Amino acid sequence: MLPKGNFPEKVYLNGKIVSVEDARISVFDRGFLFGDGIYEVMVQLENGIFHKKAHLDRLQENLIKIGIPYNVKEIDDQLETLLESSNLSNESCLIYMQVTRGVAPRKHSYPKGVPATVMMYALPYTLPPINPKHMKAILEPDFRWHRCDIKSISLLGNIMTNESAMEANTNEAALIRNGVITEGSHTNIFFVKNGTILTHPANEHILNGISRQIVFQLCKDLEIPVIEKPVAENEVIDMDEAFFTGTTTQVASIAQLGEHTFYGNDDVGKITRKLQEAFAELRMMDSTQSTL
Amino acid sequence: MLPKGNFPEKVYLNGKIVSVEDARISVFDRGFLFGDGIYEVMVQLENGIFHKKAHLDRLQENLIKIGIPYNVKEIDDQLETLLESSNLSNESCLIYMQVTRGVAPRKHSYPKGVPATVMMYALPYTLPPINPKHMKAILEPDFRWHRCDIKSISLLGNIMTNESAMEANTNEAALIRNGVITEGSHTNIFFVKNGTILTHPANEHILNGISRQIVFQLCKDLEIPVIEKPVAENEVIDMDEAFFTGTTTQVASIAQLGEHTFYGNDDVGKITRKLQEAFAELRMMDSTQSTL
Repeated sequence: MLPKGNFPEKVYLNGKIVSVEDARISVFDRGFLFGDGIYEVMVQLENGIFHKKAHLDRLQENLIKIGIPYNVKEIDDQLETLLESSNLSNESCLIYMQVTRGVAPRKHSYPKGVPATVMMYALPYTLPPINPKHMKAILEPDFRWHRCDIKSISLLGNIMTNESAMEANTNEAALIRNGVITEGSHTNIFFVKNGTILTHPANEHILNGISRQIVFQLCKDLEIPVIEKPVAENEVIDMDEAFFTGTTTQVASIAQLGEHTFYGNDDVGKITRKLQEAFAELRMMDSTQSTL
Repeated sequence: MLPKGNFPEKVYLNGKIVSVEDARISVFDRGFLFGDGIYEVMVQLENGIFHKKAHLDRLQENLIKIGIPYNVKEIDDQLETLLESSNLSNESCLIYMQVTRGVAPRKHSYPKGVPATVMMYALPYTLPPINPKHMKAILEPDFRWHRCDIKSISLLGNIMTNESAMEANTNEAALIRNGVITEGSHTNIFFVKNGTILTHPANEHILNGISRQIVFQLCKDLEIPVIEKPVAENEVIDMDEAFFTGTTTQVASIAQLGEHTFYGNDDVGKITRKLQEAFAELRMMDSTQSTL
């Protein structure tokens, strides 16, 4: 029996739509034993699934990175069935997808000839055009692995860090590796200094977020210069603005980061606001085929 | 349906013994969604479960480290039931145990008031008194997280590394972080130089293995000096012997590590052999209450 909570009614599991109570997997699924899988989160807004192709492409790339032989075309083909059975065909919702290496006796080495486990669900979810939060975030050591470019379900480092943020009564934790700020526990982070945007380059220490890439595109359109260069912990105090990005975070203004207060009241920086407004406008366009 | 393979017949799952086919968990288990759990592996030998108390103590410590409120006394109490139902009461077997943070809607922050998921099983397993392998191992960058002291199920880094070893047709991968050798993908590693044992100190970059601690005790008894100091990648060539340790690995001689060959034939180093023999003798003693 499931505890109370905001579960979906239906789940897509290995080719079938089942009730959430029946959405059960073997304890020998490698997702459960080894965190051996990849996930994605998308949102369906007024004009379809926001940047659907970019999300599915990334899912496919990540599966290739860890050697799970699975073609995401099945997911693409089944999305509408999932949404229909969830009564969310044309509704705002969040779509979660996860693919693991499948079921096999517990052994580190990859099993051969085992089908991947595929799970997805959709939940009603409303995103305001602009994220109204004035985020507070702590600064925490980045003790995660060195392949943060892989959107893996081995997320213990991320959730421990996120929990530290919750315990500190803040919204998020920004992470510090080798003295520089990498990203948030489940967001990317950007800074603004003298009208120029600074963010950590997309290497193996961050996830190259879809929303991160959208912000790059918006900056190009808006002629805001962007430099992919990390900001050091001790440079935060010199920054004019900061914001987080993410699929459900969109563009979220950071009011306070660690000991540094950007805005003592409900202000939002000029460039942050500009990007929030431009991001909101994107929702009016069909982005489902955008590859970024 | 499960694929073919060496699965146990029975599984202990949340208070019940069930058939392996019925050993199913919700896709909303945080073990499956986040790799949010801890595991342990023990072996039952001629004289009971080898260092049972040390393994259960470590499981409890690890659960505390990641804030899963679960008392391993239940596991200790139910082990005999599991072994009986598996027809392994007095048989040599491997015992696997896993505890996750339980079932909740997907959200990074820890759910409140949710019972932990507890899974364990036993499989027939025979360990020779001395590991006969002459191990070959590759050297790989250690790209795992910085809390390797936690025996977590977020193991993607470990299995990717192990898979590299398999692809290279070797037995294991030894990992290099900041120029020094930390441990194997699922073992600890030791070196011998001029009669002294060298191994990485038990900090956040390695798991403090039970077998590692047993080797320390044996060295004390045998008056073999031990220094907890990491060996650099470029010092391997100067070492006289090397071996891996682990619950199922016991003490395994390393014949070849990266480009360096320790033994071109079936030799085993003098100190490695001494420790293998002393390790084998331990099996004649009751270790179930040993805390190390």
